Amino acid sequence: MINNGITVQQTAEYLKNADNILLLCHKNPDGDTLGSAGGLMYALKKLGKVCAVACNDEIPQKYDFLDLDVFSGQFTPEYIVAVDVADTKLLGDKMAEYADKVDLCIDHHPSNTGYATMVCCDGKLPAAAQLVLQVVQAMEVELDVNIANCLYTGLMTDTGCFKYSATTAETHIAAAQLLNAGAAHDFIANRFFMSKSRKTIALEKHALNTLEYYFDDKCAVIELPTDVLTEIGAQPGDIDGISAMPRTIEGVDVGITIRQISESVFKVSVRTNENANANEIAAGLGGGGHTKAAGCEVMGSMESVKNAILREVETALCR
Amino acid sequence: MINNGITVQQTAEYLKNADNILLLCHKNPDGDTLGSAGGLMYALKKLGKVCAVACNDEIPQKYDFLDLDVFSGQFTPEYIVAVDVADTKLLGDKMAEYADKVDLCIDHHPSNTGYATMVCCDGKLPAAAQLVLQVVQAMEVELDVNIANCLYTGLMTDTGCFKYSATTAETHIAAAQLLNAGAAHDFIANRFFMSKSRKTIALEKHALNTLEYYFDDKCAVIELPTDVLTEIGAQPGDIDGISAMPRTIEGVDVGITIRQISESVFKVSVRTNENANANEIAAGLGGGGHTKAAGCEVMGSMESVKNAILREVETALCR
Repeated sequence: MINNGITVQQTAEYLKNADNILLLCHKNPDGDTLGSAGGLMYALKKLGKVCAVACNDEIPQKYDFLDLDVFSGQFTPEYIVAVDVADTKLLGDKMAEYADKVDLCIDHHPSNTGYATMVCCDGKLPAAAQLVLQVVQAMEVELDVNIANCLYTGLMTDTGCFKYSATTAETHIAAAQLLNAGAAHDFIANRFFMSKSRKTIALEKHALNTLEYYFDDKCAVIELPTDVLTEIGAQPGDIDGISAMPRTIEGVDVGITIRQISESVFKVSVRTNENANANEIAAGLGGGGHTKAAGCEVMGSMESVKNAILREVETALCR
Repeated sequence: MINNGITVQQTAEYLKNADNILLLCHKNPDGDTLGSAGGLMYALKKLGKVCAVACNDEIPQKYDFLDLDVFSGQFTPEYIVAVDVADTKLLGDKMAEYADKVDLCIDHHPSNTGYATMVCCDGKLPAAAQLVLQVVQAMEVELDVNIANCLYTGLMTDTGCFKYSATTAETHIAAAQLLNAGAAHDFIANRFFMSKSRKTIALEKHALNTLEYYFDDKCAVIELPTDVLTEIGAQPGDIDGISAMPRTIEGVDVGITIRQISESVFKVSVRTNENANANEIAAGLGGGGHTKAAGCEVMGSMESVKNAILREVETALCR
């Protein structure tokens, strides 16, 4: 429940009255937080504002084309805006100094904690970029190719290329407006959806080689031991995509990915469809999450952790 | 060059004046030919017309939800319409009797041969369904959930979920209209883009295990021997997706898939990006195709065929 919620129009007014604006992204930045911050950055610059983007982590190379102005102390921030950041914890250690100073938050997470002085949040939208587009339009800034590339990147990546369930007619209308403004559709689609890194390919190969089916093939399990992850040089971001894979196999109700964190600590990711509750399965081992995606951390060996989570899965499938 | 081209408005008029309409799909039917025919079928029924859909092949189960009326002689066709069929050859043997009797063709292939009495073709559109939507609107038929599900299936599948380069602002506007009319976005996205058969998973696993890189990793090669294909029970349709895979790896300019057809016959699929010409590579071994996708059939052993195609690839990469 957010008590400091404001409308898109009010958000536009606050931004128009501000200057020396710092735009904060969430840590482990993705296309939506960077694209949303970038879209806002280019729009505010068109209004003559001084502004820049800041993030706990280095911006991954694949977002180079957004050409974001990264904050490096070039001005004294007077107005702090967090974009696509549901909780101050997600700002990361390096941005922690701003945690209790956020003036405005623009977000699309229903779980937003309302940490900012003013919050413009629409939990029904599939991407923060869709909300930022509304804000840019409410500021009466004409879309250009820079704004369009940023926001189209956010929209495309956070909707899984317009596949995820929160995609609506309005999402497509937003996409049409961004394409009309010159968004490099082909380039962005190729970069984010039509190519895979060799690291991802190596992870997929390993994942498929460990894939096992249980309970009349209703459960699929993948194992990612540390030595393999180290050998491949996989980052947390690379693993996210892999965790989604077992559940996408036809007939599989529960997809499990067991990732070794240290010698005796394992992180279990649980993904389910409507036939099982991921949160209940993960809760059985002290974890939690959402009905379709949840997780837990378990002590033991790969074998003992697998057996433990499979007992929870069996119980869930028998409900 | 099509000399019998007509506008969308004229197409709507011809259809409104017709009855007992047979809607022909192309053989090996996909989401666009079936969705386009289905969307037109539901729209024509709303105008009180008798009509049905016909196809050379049985309609794959995954399209069951479109609930198409399949032609089985229930009326005498008076007006024959081909949808998403670029050439009469693509009607298939069982539909060959209609090849020289097609009154109207609605299509989006630039290569359309103009075989029908009247042709409504827009080669710039990414899906025939986008054109059929225009025709339905020109007939002044109000969109409903049946029409929307059919056309959204066509639009989504033929654009690779709005990824492919021919996707434009107008494509997204069409998608928005179909979602507003009730298209089951989540169901269709899940069915076509968020699940894989166990056969596909098994093929991917095998493909990744044979994957090899050559020429400073600019060429990636996958081998599919007969015994593996037989064991998996893979169909030609399953293999199409695999052939596209090696080229999607970052840094790879040429992706090669070698599929064994019989003991000493191998089918080589060549996919390239802008740094190499697939047609030239395939032509070196007596094959051909397009600049980015081509193929050839070669006699020999897996090893000798691989060496032969790699020589062609090396030459192409040195150009």
